[in-house]
Amino acid sequence: MKKLINHPENVVREELEGIALAHADLIKVHFDPNFIYRADAPRAGKVAIVSGGGSGHEPMHGGFVGYGMLDAACPGAVFTSPTPDQMLEAAKTVHGGNGVLFIVKNYTGDVMNFEMAADLAMAEGIEVQSVVIDDDVAVENSLYTAGRRGVGTTVLAEKICGAAAEAGYSLSQLAHLCRKVNGWGRSMGMALTSCTVPHVGKPTFDLPEDQMEIGIGIHGEPGRSRLPLKTADEIVEMLMGPILSDLPFKAGDEVLLFVNSMGGTPLIELYIAYRQAHRLAVQHGLKVVRNLIGPYITSLEMAGCSITLLKMDDELTRFWDAPVRTPALRWG
Amino acid sequence: MKKLINHPENVVREELEGIALAHADLIKVHFDPNFIYRADAPRAGKVAIVSGGGSGHEPMHGGFVGYGMLDAACPGAVFTSPTPDQMLEAAKTVHGGNGVLFIVKNYTGDVMNFEMAADLAMAEGIEVQSVVIDDDVAVENSLYTAGRRGVGTTVLAEKICGAAAEAGYSLSQLAHLCRKVNGWGRSMGMALTSCTVPHVGKPTFDLPEDQMEIGIGIHGEPGRSRLPLKTADEIVEMLMGPILSDLPFKAGDEVLLFVNSMGGTPLIELYIAYRQAHRLAVQHGLKVVRNLIGPYITSLEMAGCSITLLKMDDELTRFWDAPVRTPALRWG
Repeated sequence: MKKLINHPENVVREELEGIALAHADLIKVHFDPNFIYRADAPRAGKVAIVSGGGSGHEPMHGGFVGYGMLDAACPGAVFTSPTPDQMLEAAKTVHGGNGVLFIVKNYTGDVMNFEMAADLAMAEGIEVQSVVIDDDVAVENSLYTAGRRGVGTTVLAEKICGAAAEAGYSLSQLAHLCRKVNGWGRSMGMALTSCTVPHVGKPTFDLPEDQMEIGIGIHGEPGRSRLPLKTADEIVEMLMGPILSDLPFKAGDEVLLFVNSMGGTPLIELYIAYRQAHRLAVQHGLKVVRNLIGPYITSLEMAGCSITLLKMDDELTRFWDAPVRTPALRWG
Repeated sequence: MKKLINHPENVVREELEGIALAHADLIKVHFDPNFIYRADAPRAGKVAIVSGGGSGHEPMHGGFVGYGMLDAACPGAVFTSPTPDQMLEAAKTVHGGNGVLFIVKNYTGDVMNFEMAADLAMAEGIEVQSVVIDDDVAVENSLYTAGRRGVGTTVLAEKICGAAAEAGYSLSQLAHLCRKVNGWGRSMGMALTSCTVPHVGKPTFDLPEDQMEIGIGIHGEPGRSRLPLKTADEIVEMLMGPILSDLPFKAGDEVLLFVNSMGGTPLIELYIAYRQAHRLAVQHGLKVVRNLIGPYITSLEMAGCSITLLKMDDELTRFWDAPVRTPALRWG
């Protein structure tokens, strides 16, 4: 296992120490239980947004904490759900008096623990609503999921809902918006290589030198099919087809096109993939009005990419464009 | 070779097509000769800044074109210098009447071709000054270099000089500032794995599973030593030692600490490295006033990192903080 780490058991703690040192202007880190939260929390009157999930998907979610996005993020161990006590403490820390929205990726452990945390928070008088993201069109059920997995749309939902929260949306308005984003987003991913969980020490799966996995999950869960390696243009077509037909996206729709690196795939390849994805979107009659390209929801050092297409309207575009200041997304 | 590409010979062209589709609000791409330039070029009265180098180091340099940074970037083939005609056409396209600054990484081909382009531009009445970046403390000379290689400080110089150009610095003031940044920046890198140049099809070098290369160049040029794999904390200490002693950085100095991924190293590991680099800087008496963490000057999918330390003063900090709107760096 070739990694820039110290002891495998200390990976998340040391990562959080690094984040705390690096971004003290934006965020603070609470240890035991672990969560990252906005340096200026709680923001009185604003609905707070809390997300979380296993580590190993950086910058998601900790890199999205800050003005215009998340109020707190709860990192579990690598590829392991965070626990209810993390979520409860995070919610209590950032609650500004107007309730808390939990944005939850659809993995059984995440959903169960966020539900438990919501119950505990409500018992302490904090109003909570949860929205589960399940945008992955690859498979109906998977290793860690009943129903579709939550992937790339999560990043977009956190940005858009974060801006809406700054603009004064109520908790029920925010939950409604988050469900709309989830309903309008579709994703699919693929892997060229596996990744290695530090405390496991060997690759999650074996993928021969001439094979790829289409429909991979962000923890290396099996996808739709294992196939001989193809060209970037063919691969992107295999991802875009199921995405385009699922919503379905219709000619004339405005979309945000998000081409994501699984971690080990460099930008030079992402732009080659983006070129084809954009071309196919246009061929389908879509208008690509916004995009995002880079490593935002990763699987450690896995090589591969995922594509997310989000149908946009004026509300979503306005909140996408709104200012954001987090370690990983920053503009305006 | 597992890459998300089509034909190896088309990698750079297709990448540029993707960049053009993705960032039409910020940049335009000129083909044959290839260069990326600001969508609003030329900017009358502003000194134009042009850089360039081999592809495979993305987002450098094309991702740094836009308001507050570069006016144009000339990408060569992967790990291959761009040609004088690219640089000349780029300079002519973005020249706003007040001269052009070439920022050149110290590789023999880059330096030679930028010199030739400067001569050609000056023959056409465009005033040009060139500054060569040579900040890599690892080795005195290397495979492609007489003198030290140019690495991470290039990113910082392009940001700082780009802001100064927006603020109205003259060509000679800009060249002076760029030399100051180069004089105050020191870098060193390391690799856990090799990378594979697409048209070569096999790894640039072999690095056994239990070995690492300290002092690696951004094209996989040999470094100082090949050693058994160590912990992140030990590796960072091996990079920071030579950096700290070279300028030398003194107690009380304000610095920008830049921890860069070589491409395949994920953010979770970079923050572990940042934690130790920050700690060592503080132990040395330095005040870390700014930082940058992520893949900014890469070597395709190589796993590893580099560290750059830049001594800061009010002028550098002001221009670092100034607004920037490029595909890869965007704030303010």
